[in-house]
Amino acid sequence: MHVDLNADMGESFGPWPMGSDAALLEVITSANVACGFHAGDWDVMAQTMGLAVANNVGIGAHPGFPDLQGFGRRRMHLSHDSLRNLVRYQLGAAQAMARSVGGEVRHLKLHGALANMASEDSAMAMACYEGALSVDPDIIIMVLAATQQQDAVEMLGCRWAGEIFADRAYNDDATLVDRSLPGAVIHDADVAGARMVEMVRADAIITESGKHIPAAVDTICLHGDGATAVQIARTVRSALAEAGITLKRFDGRQGAISNT
Amino acid sequence: MHVDLNADMGESFGPWPMGSDAALLEVITSANVACGFHAGDWDVMAQTMGLAVANNVGIGAHPGFPDLQGFGRRRMHLSHDSLRNLVRYQLGAAQAMARSVGGEVRHLKLHGALANMASEDSAMAMACYEGALSVDPDIIIMVLAATQQQDAVEMLGCRWAGEIFADRAYNDDATLVDRSLPGAVIHDADVAGARMVEMVRADAIITESGKHIPAAVDTICLHGDGATAVQIARTVRSALAEAGITLKRFDGRQGAISNT
Amino acid sequence: MHVDLNADMGESFGPWPMGSDAALLEVITSANVACGFHAGDWDVMAQTMGLAVANNVGIGAHPGFPDLQGFGRRRMHLSHDSLRNLVRYQLGAAQAMARSVGGEVRHLKLHGALANMASEDSAMAMACYEGALSVDPDIIIMVLAATQQQDAVEMLGCRWAGEIFADRAYNDDATLVDRSLPGAVIHDADVAGARMVEMVRADAIITESGKHIPAAVDTICLHGDGATAVQIARTVRSALAEAGITLKRFDGRQGAISNT
Amino acid sequence: MHVDLNADMGESFGPWPMGSDAALLEVITSANVACGFHAGDWDVMAQTMGLAVANNVGIGAHPGFPDLQGFGRRRMHLSHDSLRNLVRYQLGAAQAMARSVGGEVRHLKLHGALANMASEDSAMAMACYEGALSVDPDIIIMVLAATQQQDAVEMLGCRWAGEIFADRAYNDDATLVDRSLPGAVIHDADVAGARMVEMVRADAIITESGKHIPAAVDTICLHGDGATAVQIARTVRSALAEAGITLKRFDGRQGAISNT
Repeated sequence: MHVDLNADMGESFGPWPMGSDAALLEVITSANVACGFHAGDWDVMAQTMGLAVANNVGIGAHPGFPDLQGFGRRRMHLSHDSLRNLVRYQLGAAQAMARSVGGEVRHLKLHGALANMASEDSAMAMACYEGALSVDPDIIIMVLAATQQQDAVEMLGCRWAGEIFADRAYNDDATLVDRSLPGAVIHDADVAGARMVEMVRADAIITESGKHIPAAVDTICLHGDGATAVQIARTVRSALAEAGITLKRFDGRQGAISNT
Repeated sequence: MHVDLNADMGESFGPWPMGSDAALLEVITSANVACGFHAGDWDVMAQTMGLAVANNVGIGAHPGFPDLQGFGRRRMHLSHDSLRNLVRYQLGAAQAMARSVGGEVRHLKLHGALANMASEDSAMAMACYEGALSVDPDIIIMVLAATQQQDAVEMLGCRWAGEIFADRAYNDDATLVDRSLPGAVIHDADVAGARMVEMVRADAIITESGKHIPAAVDTICLHGDGATAVQIARTVRSALAEAGITLKRFDGRQGAISNT
Repeated sequence: MHVDLNADMGESFGPWPMGSDAALLEVITSANVACGFHAGDWDVMAQTMGLAVANNVGIGAHPGFPDLQGFGRRRMHLSHDSLRNLVRYQLGAAQAMARSVGGEVRHLKLHGALANMASEDSAMAMACYEGALSVDPDIIIMVLAATQQQDAVEMLGCRWAGEIFADRAYNDDATLVDRSLPGAVIHDADVAGARMVEMVRADAIITESGKHIPAAVDTICLHGDGATAVQIARTVRSALAEAGITLKRFDGRQGAISNT
Repeated sequence: MHVDLNADMGESFGPWPMGSDAALLEVITSANVACGFHAGDWDVMAQTMGLAVANNVGIGAHPGFPDLQGFGRRRMHLSHDSLRNLVRYQLGAAQAMARSVGGEVRHLKLHGALANMASEDSAMAMACYEGALSVDPDIIIMVLAATQQQDAVEMLGCRWAGEIFADRAYNDDATLVDRSLPGAVIHDADVAGARMVEMVRADAIITESGKHIPAAVDTICLHGDGATAVQIARTVRSALAEAGITLKRFDGRQGAISNT
């Protein structure tokens, strides 16, 4: 039994630092690196990827909308053709930066509003992923488990990995509990650790009500900002290790989850 | 006896067209495609590279300063480390776009003020080229013949190709005649064609005064904007063909010109 | 009986020209000048406003989304607070450029997707207009007649002017006929001229079916791009003049249309 | 005897915070607010100016090069015409934001590389200041005392105020001691406070060697970033107050310093 731990990083920009990348890189097994559109820049990317290589952490491209001021969190409406090209461009930039520090881009994960929109719209998700696959047919697409992102990779038949959140409660339809509701965000590191052990063992999303939704639990998303983020990340990692779950990079599955 | 013809292209941006890419692609053998920093965007790049592949024209990355309003023509002062990353980022984006349309990036040529500064400063040129070579050690660097750009590739020992201008007069020290002086820019297509035949045959830059400066005449730069640009390009191509000079992509030389 | 003629302009950017500003400035009475977010830049704005002053044409700020590559035509979702500030920023920049060439900003008109979204959402329109009015309480807001933009200015009680399109057919609910339908865009300059005379005389939008919708016909929008744009603009102006309708800048109405 | 205390602020951008604006606004009398080109954005500007108004601190526009990634600290080469427009644009945006929160822009100070280049090149400084004065002829230009910035305002005959640094040592030619040399930056708050009292009393820059250079000591620049910045700012303020020097906004002098 094994699982991957991932976190977004490389989100500094120019003179502005963000996140605790160095500390997180000692905890995670896969890093989603911003590609300069919603965060990160050519220098930040080089530095972040160099650190990832030094920590033997898998590198992923983390493309977002071209909206630096909004941190890629504002919905924008681009044509599917333009989305394909947007993902290609950012993935290519990430590949070059990785290569220049002796690494390689293994996976791709959409950021922010781009990810949110794609999780509700499989056609949009497919456009983004087609862009990535046209550049690297072997790339592993990281998807939000049990969303239309997952439908998209199953339809494309590409390599993929399913992701769940360590610190967010789930509704019975596998969507996230709205942040405005009590209990939506899990702040207690021990609670977060315990439920991750449960979900990995069950290979399922376990909702607030206790319902089990079979899911591809290949990787757990840890957050890197906020005062207690690194502490939660470390605790989740320890809890998994103590439960005998190996922490290693995902290999990527292929095809529909029902076939695995 | 053979030579390559190159032109900058993919310089449209968003709703703003520029240049006569489709017409030029029928004339040239290598295209230098803008990478989104001084011109071009993800959609323009995809379209331009698709056209280049369809015309069997070699694709080059054409990185510039991050200065869209100034079209990369304003001098900016970046650290050598940042220049390395700037080139890596743009090259990677270009590689991805090329790959997605079934092509590949064979060469790299610096744009605008970045090129001008590098032609006067071999250390700066080396930083840019090191960035490119760390991404693709086999890439062919296109340099302004007989400038410090050429010094840089000779010091790096990488593959390179020397470039001369079809429509610009040269001083006796191999620099270009200042645009403000009479005769600096050659507007007569037949004159441009005849002198290119001469220079290719001589494997030398021939200056205004008639002096021959041995040079790596591997590729001729044709301009794509201006009313008569395509006409000059076609005439130069015809003159070369009529003189029995084969038009084909450069292979790239390696090492100092004195050794070739 | 009088009416204003307006057109968007100053939409060049850096090295990329757009539109026929100089020709249009001889036809129109009010210019909507792009403010650098979706088009235009500090140099283009200075030049455009200088020309407007020289032609005694009223200057308006024409703010849009921060989306140069998409020309402000892609929908983005910003908070109302951010929209207020977005409009303030662009309006202020426009005021400064106008002042520096001896002019002043008299009116404000939203651009592209920002305008489209505001025409469907009076709360969003109000946020934008509140931003403008907090900078200049006397500014005249140009609204798409009979849309929620108009509802917004009526609720705000500010100065405003209603706009109709010279070259677009209207549905019976005052919305524009979809561009994909036949007859949606009027290409015949004489037809465009005749219907503008009709609508100004009726102080109403006249729909495709012939229905009259009472409207604030204070200004007519003329387009500046496309091969025949200037020709249509000139023809509309002539038709209005021949019909005895004076062409002059709007003064701006105040309050609900039913009160005027 | 009185003096002004100024600091740069509003240098956050999108999701990235910077500086200790709220704390500094309780110490200073004039705030130099970034205008969105090298730092700041429309939302940050609104918030920062609102805070400045609430603290009764004078507002200045702080324009910089269009280089967010480089924080405006990289030298760029723009034409004088473009510099005029660049300053106009940013000043106008700042004026609008100030007006919308009930404030006004009283002064202008150049940022980063733009300031450094202007301090060495009075013609370039004049271009920038002419841009500002064409928008507001009464604006007070804050200049680095005893540099070519000061030459520029004396030639223009505009209102201006001279600035010295609290935490930087001066050479005998009134330039700053190079940061790489020992003692270049003063880290001891008490030392900084004592020398500011001395310089204000002497109306002179006092160099490392003890030389007195008569200067327009109208305002003292305090830095807002770094761990001890706010502490130094408070100490300088206290030292001045204890020495009986009133802390108040500058009024701006007019004409050459020899005439004052």
